[in-house]
Amino acid sequence: MTADALPMVVPDSGLPARVRIHEVGARDGLQNEQRAVPTPVKAEFVRRLAEAGLTTIEATSFVHPKWVPQLADAEQLFPQLAGLGNIDLPVLVPNQRGLERALALGARRIAVFASATESFAKANLNRGLDESLAVFEPVVRQAKDAGVHVRGYVSMCFGDPWEGAVPLRQVARVCTALRDMGCDELSLGDTIGVATPGHVRELLALLNEEGVPTHEIGVHFHDTYGQALANTLAALQHGVTTVDASAGGLGGCPYAKSATGNLATEDLVWMLHGLGIETGVDLGRLTATSVWMAEQLGRPSPSRTVRALSHKDQ
Amino acid sequence: MTADALPMVVPDSGLPARVRIHEVGARDGLQNEQRAVPTPVKAEFVRRLAEAGLTTIEATSFVHPKWVPQLADAEQLFPQLAGLGNIDLPVLVPNQRGLERALALGARRIAVFASATESFAKANLNRGLDESLAVFEPVVRQAKDAGVHVRGYVSMCFGDPWEGAVPLRQVARVCTALRDMGCDELSLGDTIGVATPGHVRELLALLNEEGVPTHEIGVHFHDTYGQALANTLAALQHGVTTVDASAGGLGGCPYAKSATGNLATEDLVWMLHGLGIETGVDLGRLTATSVWMAEQLGRPSPSRTVRALSHKDQ
Repeated sequence: MTADALPMVVPDSGLPARVRIHEVGARDGLQNEQRAVPTPVKAEFVRRLAEAGLTTIEATSFVHPKWVPQLADAEQLFPQLAGLGNIDLPVLVPNQRGLERALALGARRIAVFASATESFAKANLNRGLDESLAVFEPVVRQAKDAGVHVRGYVSMCFGDPWEGAVPLRQVARVCTALRDMGCDELSLGDTIGVATPGHVRELLALLNEEGVPTHEIGVHFHDTYGQALANTLAALQHGVTTVDASAGGLGGCPYAKSATGNLATEDLVWMLHGLGIETGVDLGRLTATSVWMAEQLGRPSPSRTVRALSHKDQ
Repeated sequence: MTADALPMVVPDSGLPARVRIHEVGARDGLQNEQRAVPTPVKAEFVRRLAEAGLTTIEATSFVHPKWVPQLADAEQLFPQLAGLGNIDLPVLVPNQRGLERALALGARRIAVFASATESFAKANLNRGLDESLAVFEPVVRQAKDAGVHVRGYVSMCFGDPWEGAVPLRQVARVCTALRDMGCDELSLGDTIGVATPGHVRELLALLNEEGVPTHEIGVHFHDTYGQALANTLAALQHGVTTVDASAGGLGGCPYAKSATGNLATEDLVWMLHGLGIETGVDLGRLTATSVWMAEQLGRPSPSRTVRALSHKDQ
């Protein structure tokens, strides 16, 4: 290892002391692979992510296999993760049927996937915006009744490939609707990666005004225009302590043509650790995991930190 | 063009109204190409950058051709740029001989290239740190006597591949030495891309304490670990208004193994325009220029914004 294999720590005032990384690589990443990854490889991926210190690892999705065949093995995969100990393993559920499948396997955390725009709701969920929220309502209620933690994803918060700019009030309406249903946490998605830092701050401020506390908000940035980490910094400066990221930068969005990968967890960890913010993650082990996963997928990781650190080891 | 071909403008409070982009692609980018780019292509590149609205375009280097054969055509190239009008065309000069060659061709802006560390000074300049500063002194004086604007690059400000962490006071010492010689402007280089935002802020604050005003400071980030734009945001929040970037993300550093490209100008412009900060740059024309240059070089641009926007046009 060379002298610069870890970032130099120089704390910045006014930032959170600790950030919880919501790791989405195994779900948001692998659901976008052209070929399904074998179940044992997925299980090994999640295990290695946990060993690298990630404590919230979105494991899979109970969406109908017709829509996301890459994750059709959710029933086989999830029980294999039972031995991971004190790790949160949220799973995506699109509807009541998905929730029942997840609950039957003992899932303790679920996520529903809403859209901030009419167009994306129709493209991704096959329903209008309000209609899709109506579908989630009994799902969230039943999950809460079962004592299950519920995350509400809100996609296209900062721009939509069909509609362009998305009014902030519309995003806030979807967010408060999800919260009113009982969602414990929201994840604000910049699904096509167009946001810039002022936009992030403005949405966070509006949500606070509408009564959504910052500690219930996570951010989910895509690096399509290279903006993900700058936007994350703006969110941290606002007090956000939950950041979604994907190991090795895996992922994208099959329904949004220009959406490239999620923010890479390694690039995020480099910044957070450099800022003196605790994550519990071992960057070396995480990078090794992404290098291993890149070998399974047969192509290099798009994460700049993974490339820089794995290049050093050669 | 789709609805998201330009960023939505949401200004952020406390940021500069205007940023001057110091475009380094033609020099810092092309000097790292394995094969020299033909002179007419270089001239056309600079012309297109100017047409895209960039007003400070570092054109070439008057270093000895033995060291940087890729820019051995400086004498042929520079006169071809005479017709560009009101564009600043700084050139790199390593020593007195380089300055004389540049002055003979009518250069009005030069840059000298210092190191914040002993190791990099020896590796890159073949001289110790103090010895290299001593070489620059008469160069800067002579340039100032000729009424020429002088920029002082300081590389390895945030980390060094041999030395690891670089003490901030050492960086400040080199900066003030260059300023005392007569440099009009400094460019703080994160040559291996390891900096994080708190580190950037701390160096800027120390330089201010040492009497260097923010308006004389430019920042020069590399995206090796994906940190360049987050670091730029931190610099803007400190009041910095000069940002170095390379069209299409061209470049790297032949002497620092893990250094990948410079911050891509397009990724920077996406953020600045999204923040409502004026640059004078036409993002569409700039992207088209980088796509054209990528064709000349025979490989795709590493800029995420260039990839996203050129993908849209297909």
